[in-house]
Amino acid sequence: SAQPFTLHKGDLPADVSFTGSVAIDTETLGLDPNRDRLCLVQLSSGDGHAHLVQPDPKTYDAPRLKGLLADPAILKIFHFARFDLAVLEKYLGVKVAPVYCTKIASKLVRTYTDRHGLKDITSELLGVDLSKQQQSSDWGAATLTQQQLAYAASDVLHLHALKAKLDAMLEREGRTAFADAAFAFLGTRARLDLAGFGEVDIFAH
Amino acid sequence: SAQPFTLHKGDLPADVSFTGSVAIDTETLGLDPNRDRLCLVQLSSGDGHAHLVQPDPKTYDAPRLKGLLADPAILKIFHFARFDLAVLEKYLGVKVAPVYCTKIASKLVRTYTDRHGLKDITSELLGVDLSKQQQSSDWGAATLTQQQLAYAASDVLHLHALKAKLDAMLEREGRTAFADAAFAFLGTRARLDLAGFGEVDIFAH
Ligand SMILES: Nc1ncnc2c1ncn2[C@@H]1O[C@H](COP(=O)(O)O)[C@@H](OP(=O)(O)O)[C@H]1O
Ligand SMILES: Nc1ncnc2c1ncn2[C@@H]1O[C@H](COP(=O)(O)O)[C@@H](OP(=O)(O)O)[C@H]1O
Repeated sequence: SAQPFTLHKGDLPADVSFTGSVAIDTETLGLDPNRDRLCLVQLSSGDGHAHLVQPDPKTYDAPRLKGLLADPAILKIFHFARFDLAVLEKYLGVKVAPVYCTKIASKLVRTYTDRHGLKDITSELLGVDLSKQQQSSDWGAATLTQQQLAYAASDVLHLHALKAKLDAMLEREGRTAFADAAFAFLGTRARLDLAGFGEVDIFAH
Repeated sequence: SAQPFTLHKGDLPADVSFTGSVAIDTETLGLDPNRDRLCLVQLSSGDGHAHLVQPDPKTYDAPRLKGLLADPAILKIFHFARFDLAVLEKYLGVKVAPVYCTKIASKLVRTYTDRHGLKDITSELLGVDLSKQQQSSDWGAATLTQQQLAYAASDVLHLHALKAKLDAMLEREGRTAFADAAFAFLGTRARLDLAGFGEVDIFAH
């Protein structure tokens, strides 16, 4: 289709699969996973197309999506994975791994700025201008608008390209091991958030 | 001897060894490992006695101490390990592992208080009153006072007993996995501090 996304109700279809890695983002009713439910899961292989899964909030029965999220052979690429991991574990009951986070990678190498939002890094590293206009909209609607779907798709379409740029910078600055160790801790960080430790930096004095 | 500590110049003696675990603390010239040198390393097996190693600041040549710190079969118990790991890696060139931290364990289970200082947890969990009077003294002196040495020893004498209490609480509250994952990240957290990321919570939004 001409549209860069396909909407799937309930679960990923059987004929959509990923190898190696998949870029993922979620939309929710707000920023508190214990309050705000999961509404949409966006996925892309990095080929310019996004698959948007709108799970049934009554059952969250999405076995193919859950299998992908837990597949140890497929790297899940997020921007600010901490939040998505908490939401996905809370509503789909799945520990997502292994994980890459473009926000953490950016913090480790783009030390010349404090702007690590997705819009900022996509603009600087890829020259692509993301619109954030639909970010705060009602993602709980049964029928999402074309603008919402296009926005949701745009959040995953560039994560593979960002990862490639950030990996080169991590390598250049000798910080790849920092990133890998931080990514490995992200599941725990997300579970600490769900357990009520969201405001606690467990490593602080 | 009647004293609860023995001072060793340069390195641990050949006839002092540890099995299973060792409690460790360090004294430095201040709180910035990149500025403030390592002055003293305190160690205890939990038997009521402490070994205090005063390394030669010209060479930091202490092969037996370094071997112990890197020994994967011996758990190193600290209070606020993040700081000691950074200091030990910076001055002795050794990656300390595996690690346990009583401050992190306390933060995970003593959610009824925000007092996680060594003095606080030792008082509450063990009924022992630690004096902190010598904490801010000149640890760079070639000859340390008996008061300094007694203070330095007191900081490691109770860590095994604290660990036992905290482990029981972690288990009781189902938070042992949180603690283990946090302990595994501590080496990276310390290296991030040495690399200049001390003020950055790498997991924050
Ligand atoms: N405490 C917080 N403050 C701001 N954004 C947060 C947040 N916790 C999670 N987020 C989410 O983090 C994502 C990335 O933010 P940023 O681009 O600023 O780095 C955003 O998701 P969406 O872009 O999917 O809406 C935003 O909703
Ligand atoms: N930013 C910081 N603020 C306060 N204490 C710090 C610190 N970084 C490291 N420390 C050290 O952390 C140790 C434990 O502190 P606390 O008991 O308050 O939890 C103290 O060591 P010492 O007790 O060996 O002097 C203190 O010197």
